[in-house]
Amino acid sequence: MNMSEERTEVASLGEFGLIDHLTRNNETRQASTILSIGDDAAVIDQFGKQTVISSDMLIEGVHFDLMYTPLKHLGYKSVVVNLSDICAMNATPTHITLNLGISNRFSVEALDEFYEGVYAACNFYNVDLIGGDTVSSQRGLIISITAIGEITPDKFVTRSGAKSKDLLCVSGDLGGAYLGLQLLEREKKIFLEHPEIKPDLEGRAYVTGRLLKPEARIDIVEWLAENDIVPTSMMDISDGLSSEILHICKQSNVGCVLYEDKIPFHDETKEVAYKFDTDPTACALSGGEDYELLFTIKQDDYDKLRMQEKISVIGYMTEPAEGKYLITRKGNKHELTAQGWTAFQ
Amino acid sequence: MNMSEERTEVASLGEFGLIDHLTRNNETRQASTILSIGDDAAVIDQFGKQTVISSDMLIEGVHFDLMYTPLKHLGYKSVVVNLSDICAMNATPTHITLNLGISNRFSVEALDEFYEGVYAACNFYNVDLIGGDTVSSQRGLIISITAIGEITPDKFVTRSGAKSKDLLCVSGDLGGAYLGLQLLEREKKIFLEHPEIKPDLEGRAYVTGRLLKPEARIDIVEWLAENDIVPTSMMDISDGLSSEILHICKQSNVGCVLYEDKIPFHDETKEVAYKFDTDPTACALSGGEDYELLFTIKQDDYDKLRMQEKISVIGYMTEPAEGKYLITRKGNKHELTAQGWTAFQ
Repeated sequence: MNMSEERTEVASLGEFGLIDHLTRNNETRQASTILSIGDDAAVIDQFGKQTVISSDMLIEGVHFDLMYTPLKHLGYKSVVVNLSDICAMNATPTHITLNLGISNRFSVEALDEFYEGVYAACNFYNVDLIGGDTVSSQRGLIISITAIGEITPDKFVTRSGAKSKDLLCVSGDLGGAYLGLQLLEREKKIFLEHPEIKPDLEGRAYVTGRLLKPEARIDIVEWLAENDIVPTSMMDISDGLSSEILHICKQSNVGCVLYEDKIPFHDETKEVAYKFDTDPTACALSGGEDYELLFTIKQDDYDKLRMQEKISVIGYMTEPAEGKYLITRKGNKHELTAQGWTAFQ
Repeated sequence: MNMSEERTEVASLGEFGLIDHLTRNNETRQASTILSIGDDAAVIDQFGKQTVISSDMLIEGVHFDLMYTPLKHLGYKSVVVNLSDICAMNATPTHITLNLGISNRFSVEALDEFYEGVYAACNFYNVDLIGGDTVSSQRGLIISITAIGEITPDKFVTRSGAKSKDLLCVSGDLGGAYLGLQLLEREKKIFLEHPEIKPDLEGRAYVTGRLLKPEARIDIVEWLAENDIVPTSMMDISDGLSSEILHICKQSNVGCVLYEDKIPFHDETKEVAYKFDTDPTACALSGGEDYELLFTIKQDDYDKLRMQEKISVIGYMTEPAEGKYLITRKGNKHELTAQGWTAFQ
């Protein structure tokens, strides 16, 4: 076969299809590799104790827009999205490495601002920045971070352990980051067309904050440990609730029932959604970047968390043959479809 | 102070100045952080055993030119340059994570070729690819790899342990990768101006191979262990011999004497250097990407390695006040200056 004659567009496979394709022949040689590609993070055994490792890349113009993203916030968020993956394994983040590609557009002062945010996140999450690489880029800012965490042996939680009848839970509230993005994109458009008009973000601190300064839910990981709850599966919500639930269903081989009226929203999220003539549920299902934790627990653990305000039970898992459904407020049953990554392209 | 009014160009600090600047306030919070930013890799303690971590970023148009770099070689080399950093700590690489930014110029077949090289390196070095991120880039290919390795507690070797009278050693031979780059750049230029002329790389497999398919010297790490030699300092040669020696001198607070006639060259390297009307010594001192190991040993260890062909003793360390010198073939004494990173920009 002449490889040069074939050309398959990356877009035809989609993000997850591409990763599956590229890693289909990946082999494990090290006995210490407990969990490899395919979850929020990998797990390696370090002489009986376990280390959790996750890596993310953020590219200017693709993942962030410096027109409305302060560099300090970007530094903070770049760390947080990686720590969130470590939390999603039920582990505690401990270290990061940071690789930066920078074009000559960026001054040292600009990089200082970015690092201020990085250090603020390291400080808040008690994490050490231990290395990395700083190189020139031909265009824009490129950020690549690897986060490392620790966990008691075999206490890590993957996406594949959910069982039928387990309860489906989510931390915090959803949809805010997506609406924050819509709001900032709208103000950017107005500003570009009418530079004299001041951005109107009055009373929108919550949703813009959700986008610009998300947090990793280490508090949830700690609360679960304190209350002796080990989730049966867990992941963080970076793409959108429906896409993430479908990941758990696929990797755990279960079905699910999700109740629309149980999905948690902040009041400001609902308000902004209505102003945008959008359904908050759609924002939660298909918007991304909320960085909340989505997890399943055994029914027996329900009593331990039902009084907890930080966690909402939003549905339950079923046998795989029962399918994956959303029950609307009006009681209608809709099949849950993945709209996460490609929905808003 | 109004930060927005200040603008310091990154170029004014240089690569190492920039890193020093950005990390000047970096704090260590985790008791497990044994060694942080400033060496080839970081070291973290994992419950009594130690893990070595290193991270590198490669950007198309800055670090590689796809016009003469086959994607499979690029995949292989991307892994190798990271494993080389782990070897430079005297550790054994075990795992990598790989983040890729790809523009729509790249087809799935092209990525397959890249991954073939990544897997070939994983296979050769017995390393597991355990995770990463694949994202869109607006332009070109961006590669960010984190390598993880293991080492017996406190056996890692930094750049800061060299002592006066220690012998300065280097593995393999030097200058080849730089000349391979000159050769490929020349052929590219000829091809762009005269597409009908075929590239003339006859008899140049060694120097082009040094650039396109370098190896990490894990064999040297193993040989040192087998022969009970623990280097007092070590790093890999990615920038150029003089720049790397000066790193060791600075971080170890020692001076040095380097003998030009002891610097090891491959015959083809010398031949190509003369064809280019260049001094092979200059290529070794200031060219980069040889990925050999530079290390210092105690004089007592000399007998163990003097019969070893893979390692050359090229000089010795002195008291800091004695300065850093190169003794030429003719016996002249020149001060050693850093020309690594900026020499060929």
